[in-house]
Amino acid sequence: MQPLKQKAWRNDARAKVTGQAAYTDDLKLTGMLHAVPVYADHVHARIRRIATDEAGAMPGVVRVVTAGDCPGSVRFGQIRRDYPMLAEDRIRSHGDVVAVIVAETREVARAAAARVRVDAEELPALLDPDEAMKRSAALLHRSEGSNIVEHHKIRRGDIAEGFGASDFVLEEEFATQHVEHAYIEPESALCVPRADGVMEVHGSMQHPFSTRRFTAAMLGVALSEVEVRNVPVGGGFGGKDDTAAIVCARAALCARLTGRPVKMTYEREWSIRESYKRHPYRARYRMGVGKDGLIKAVEARIVADAGAYCSTTPFVTWRSAVQCCGPYRVDHVHGDVYGVYTNNVFTGAMRGFGSPQVNFFIEQLIDMAAERAGIDPIEFRRRNMLRQGDETITGQVLEGHTVGLGHVLDRIVDELGYADKFARCTRGRPRPAADGSGADEFYGVGLAMSYRGMSLGAEGMDFNAAIVNVQFDGSILLEAGVHENGQGAESTMILLLAEELGVRPERIRYRRSSTSTIPDGGPTVASRATLMGGSAVVDAARKLKGRIAEILAPRLGCAPEAVGFANDQIIGGAEPIGFGEAMVLLFFAKEFPHALGAFKAPDVDWDEATGTGRAYFTWVYGCQAVELTVNAKTGKVTLLGAAAAHDVGRAINPPMVLGQFYGGMAMGIGYALHEEVLLDGGRITNLNLDTYRIPRARDLPEMKGFIVENNDPNSLSGAKGVAEPTIELMAPAIANALYNATGKRYHRLPMKVEVAP
Amino acid sequence: MQPLKQKAWRNDARAKVTGQAAYTDDLKLTGMLHAVPVYADHVHARIRRIATDEAGAMPGVVRVVTAGDCPGSVRFGQIRRDYPMLAEDRIRSHGDVVAVIVAETREVARAAAARVRVDAEELPALLDPDEAMKRSAALLHRSEGSNIVEHHKIRRGDIAEGFGASDFVLEEEFATQHVEHAYIEPESALCVPRADGVMEVHGSMQHPFSTRRFTAAMLGVALSEVEVRNVPVGGGFGGKDDTAAIVCARAALCARLTGRPVKMTYEREWSIRESYKRHPYRARYRMGVGKDGLIKAVEARIVADAGAYCSTTPFVTWRSAVQCCGPYRVDHVHGDVYGVYTNNVFTGAMRGFGSPQVNFFIEQLIDMAAERAGIDPIEFRRRNMLRQGDETITGQVLEGHTVGLGHVLDRIVDELGYADKFARCTRGRPRPAADGSGADEFYGVGLAMSYRGMSLGAEGMDFNAAIVNVQFDGSILLEAGVHENGQGAESTMILLLAEELGVRPERIRYRRSSTSTIPDGGPTVASRATLMGGSAVVDAARKLKGRIAEILAPRLGCAPEAVGFANDQIIGGAEPIGFGEAMVLLFFAKEFPHALGAFKAPDVDWDEATGTGRAYFTWVYGCQAVELTVNAKTGKVTLLGAAAAHDVGRAINPPMVLGQFYGGMAMGIGYALHEEVLLDGGRITNLNLDTYRIPRARDLPEMKGFIVENNDPNSLSGAKGVAEPTIELMAPAIANALYNATGKRYHRLPMKVEVAP
Repeated sequence: MQPLKQKAWRNDARAKVTGQAAYTDDLKLTGMLHAVPVYADHVHARIRRIATDEAGAMPGVVRVVTAGDCPGSVRFGQIRRDYPMLAEDRIRSHGDVVAVIVAETREVARAAAARVRVDAEELPALLDPDEAMKRSAALLHRSEGSNIVEHHKIRRGDIAEGFGASDFVLEEEFATQHVEHAYIEPESALCVPRADGVMEVHGSMQHPFSTRRFTAAMLGVALSEVEVRNVPVGGGFGGKDDTAAIVCARAALCARLTGRPVKMTYEREWSIRESYKRHPYRARYRMGVGKDGLIKAVEARIVADAGAYCSTTPFVTWRSAVQCCGPYRVDHVHGDVYGVYTNNVFTGAMRGFGSPQVNFFIEQLIDMAAERAGIDPIEFRRRNMLRQGDETITGQVLEGHTVGLGHVLDRIVDELGYADKFARCTRGRPRPAADGSGADEFYGVGLAMSYRGMSLGAEGMDFNAAIVNVQFDGSILLEAGVHENGQGAESTMILLLAEELGVRPERIRYRRSSTSTIPDGGPTVASRATLMGGSAVVDAARKLKGRIAEILAPRLGCAPEAVGFANDQIIGGAEPIGFGEAMVLLFFAKEFPHALGAFKAPDVDWDEATGTGRAYFTWVYGCQAVELTVNAKTGKVTLLGAAAAHDVGRAINPPMVLGQFYGGMAMGIGYALHEEVLLDGGRITNLNLDTYRIPRARDLPEMKGFIVENNDPNSLSGAKGVAEPTIELMAPAIANALYNATGKRYHRLPMKVEVAP
Repeated sequence: MQPLKQKAWRNDARAKVTGQAAYTDDLKLTGMLHAVPVYADHVHARIRRIATDEAGAMPGVVRVVTAGDCPGSVRFGQIRRDYPMLAEDRIRSHGDVVAVIVAETREVARAAAARVRVDAEELPALLDPDEAMKRSAALLHRSEGSNIVEHHKIRRGDIAEGFGASDFVLEEEFATQHVEHAYIEPESALCVPRADGVMEVHGSMQHPFSTRRFTAAMLGVALSEVEVRNVPVGGGFGGKDDTAAIVCARAALCARLTGRPVKMTYEREWSIRESYKRHPYRARYRMGVGKDGLIKAVEARIVADAGAYCSTTPFVTWRSAVQCCGPYRVDHVHGDVYGVYTNNVFTGAMRGFGSPQVNFFIEQLIDMAAERAGIDPIEFRRRNMLRQGDETITGQVLEGHTVGLGHVLDRIVDELGYADKFARCTRGRPRPAADGSGADEFYGVGLAMSYRGMSLGAEGMDFNAAIVNVQFDGSILLEAGVHENGQGAESTMILLLAEELGVRPERIRYRRSSTSTIPDGGPTVASRATLMGGSAVVDAARKLKGRIAEILAPRLGCAPEAVGFANDQIIGGAEPIGFGEAMVLLFFAKEFPHALGAFKAPDVDWDEATGTGRAYFTWVYGCQAVELTVNAKTGKVTLLGAAAAHDVGRAINPPMVLGQFYGGMAMGIGYALHEEVLLDGGRITNLNLDTYRIPRARDLPEMKGFIVENNDPNSLSGAKGVAEPTIELMAPAIANALYNATGKRYHRLPMKVEVAP
């Protein structure tokens, strides 16, 4: 990592560095019970009976909870209500929970869980999505007419005409794997049945409002009867939504049934067994290219394994469809993206959300096409990439912001001296190892670039709120509709508010919100915190400034429009007024310095039949490159360096932006080379981090990050965001570097380099 | 009590009736410590040394905290910062706390408290306010130039001219006692030093924001660094402000110093010893009256014993000054009201707030004057009482609302058949007892009436806020700037919101507010909850309705102004839209159904030099009567019946309004006949409820309540309020009844009837 030029600003650094930060499992209440899930060793089965008597009779067991105990809806889901939070008559996945043991101690609960007997009739398991999507396949969910959860189409131009105009056609197949989020903190919930009747939920989650919906559904109560309180989160990466919410809902049910606080903290094995994963994709691409080095047509058929439940599969696969051709102009596209039910572990949101897969496909195809056309891959990209005013494959004209593809590509190429490095690639002919060991090695560089629609896009309701609540002593409380997942969202919101109000950030305290105070502004996903949450914060600040200006203008002796906010003062006209003093003046004017800010995403639209529309209201652009060697004897890949350039709009907290770069690249490297959830007949066989291998520090190269700023007028702060683009490019960059090194293409993730013995 | 015609609506009834409601002392946290105050047996002394070594060395004692440990300001106060939350160099009152013991258990803390030794030099105690106010008296607070905390003057007309025009002049002296609030739940605090650095305070209090100020001052932090969370309160009556806040601040200091949650729950003896009381008053009145039965002049000199600290003495005595002549037209007034420091227990806010005392004086004087003038006392009141458009003694013209004195007086007189009863009074000539026991008894009726300025008046900043936060499933969260003290404020706010939004009250959940979410709208005192808080709720509802109407008008097919809210529906034009469905439509319009309501009291003004001004923006009017017998041999007073008529503006929750009537009358009866804090050399000698005698059920008569409705245009809901007027009239009504029975006047409270042996 390069040295930071600027100090990172984090409101939560001290608590986290000193170990003071209290995560959910750190919370302890008197009279608290412990809940433990019970799994059955089935992948697909019809339940005859769940025998809980023996478990229930154990000393210290307070209650054994099964689906029948649920006063509300045991089935729920973010999009489809197909997830049984406790198994009913059927088991559809090895991660299905059939019962929950509530006991005085965790040890007793664990022991009791082992005594629950499930009498069930095995059913044939559907484990292959291609088989599952056949009409003849048995239905995983009887209420659905098909195992196809979703089918998104892109129909642009005339695909036959496109291929007809091509000088050559590439046909390639690719596949990606199930990936675990591997957040350091597994799922944890602490639910308190309050004396006022409200169920209070503390938990490790990315989306308190989603948790509230799951919990209210399970309890059968109104949303106002559940209050979800944010707790520091030990990592989310998209993974702390459904499963986290379901764990909270189950703990809440236990708390309601026993009338006592209930904690449910997952062990790693439970977490990996039960939580949703990144979708594995199988793709078949055809790309037609002209001698002019222009892409003429792309045909893509992608099948995503949704596993046993829907979760966010329709949205994940939608993003894949929209971005299936990468950031390039293609006039003729025929794309089909399917999500399919199987009996595998279910899949859902994960950082990248359908883009890491398609980028792995398309950015290799681009390099292949460039080579086939005899054009330098950078030059090939420049010829085809989307420029200002161009139309995307969904017919969206890129306007209203500066299209930054050229900027990020140039930056990587220039900063790395990429052309020189590219010229030195070994392309299958090993060279003596640079370490003087006498061994032979392959050497290669590779890069990849992408565009990414920001926030929820045309398939979501995209708006957000923030509350700025200034106290009469001039201290400021900020509550925002975005959630701190460890990424530094709170700090960003504070910095934006400080900037807008012209005050020191230290004046501002971020109040971790409760679902009963801030309005539901959607999930903290889709890299939307800075863009959507930040814009709501700016809106709140501007509303507040307007009111302050009106009230203080007479005293300042200027027009309200001339009142300014800087250096902890209200300025304009006469003597400046200190911010704290100004709040006292508001007190005497009987005015509350309180404002609700709201930001609505600009309008987008979508035609699902043809896959056309303005899919996202703004886009970010990124490019990543990698330099590596491969030991010619062992196949060991050594990453020498990695670099990223991302157009983030405006960088609010630059060191944290770089932190996202590095974290995303590391995760991308894991995706490319190390990680895979192994399934054997629907059962995960690597259930802990000793066998599920995320990259270690020593697996990571020196990384460089280049922030490309490009204020976006669609964002009230100019900032767009950064989280997900950083994970979506390492796999294709490494794939291209491996090809440039070894001369071999890698079509499957994770990539295993095999050298001839 | 008469049977209720209408069901009471209470959101908290179930939890309270079933014992589920969790008061502060019910809250238990793991790792929680217990704090106990240490008193020294001095009334006035200079501290040489506080020896804590022995206490600190006891097993289980975690810390002994003294003033020197305080990182912020150990002295604080609501108006003057004269209250040492931990004694510094001086003890000024027997309730001063010199140290706090923090220990693993309450028992250990209590035992350790007994081992703290205070080495102090006794100083002469100033126990008589008349002595204390002399120029020659030693100063209780060196920083003040005098022991006179406050001196309010009323200078109206020409007092000499007034007496000159009088046909007779009454001269009377009166005195009232120290009274204890006697809330069932003594002070209790639970403070949690949160991992995010915020001190979280749970406690039994009337004014969370005042508690926050005391706590932040003691910790030396910004207001945003303390979050006070409301907890059900077991009675306040004005008494859960300073002392409650100070107990919280001390517990917070202990929590900060130990890094652990600290609970501090008071025993009754500590509570009575340390908490402020109702001010004892000494008054000298001269009243000049003409043969025409009109009051020509009033001269009043009133001295209130403030005790050792200021608290709200300036505001309490201000109300006494403004209302010192009762609800009558008097053209010539010379009033002086003093609050004076002494070494007695300090005095502050208590239900009535300076009015029960002056009403005890003036309403007896009215009866005396009527008798002297040979006019029926009802007729005398009618001749002198303030009518629409009249000027009060501060020069305020009573307009903008309907002056309701005549209504309440007529109601009492009519409902009770008062004239008949009055004619039957024994006036010192006993009659055979009605119970046929053969004993003799005196019989009398008496009444009193008053007007009362509502809310804080010209000496406070009077505004309030409410937040209506509708969820997208149509359930509603309401947070208001007024606080549930057990009086039913939450229910009233819910009913007002339900009425305004046209929804079932069951849709609405009152969210007990935190000082970090609702803006500081002042204390829940001065009978202002319904008036100020209710108006803010109505304002929030109206803002929200405006936005909903704008968004849904096109769909309803009518103008926004034609959109209505009734029966859980949005109506106007076409098909009505269910309230829940409407919220879904708002979701799709990306609109947050969230509004901050604010209500500013209409402008008032005050000239302290002359005691003139518009003191309060609106007034309530009340009349209470009582019927009693006195055993001619024993002097035992038996109350046969009591009745109250109060103009409350509009009654939102009528059974609860009557509950206030009955509770206030009961408290007034205690004030009149039973209650007195006994002081011996500055030490309270009746420290528990076995010796401090509040009325028992069997001391109370059959009570009748007559609600006089009189919508007030100054209030957005039409409601004014009811809490305090109900306590301020029983003492003079009983005094007048005793006179009408026995022929003797009672000038001191509590009234002890002595019969000749």
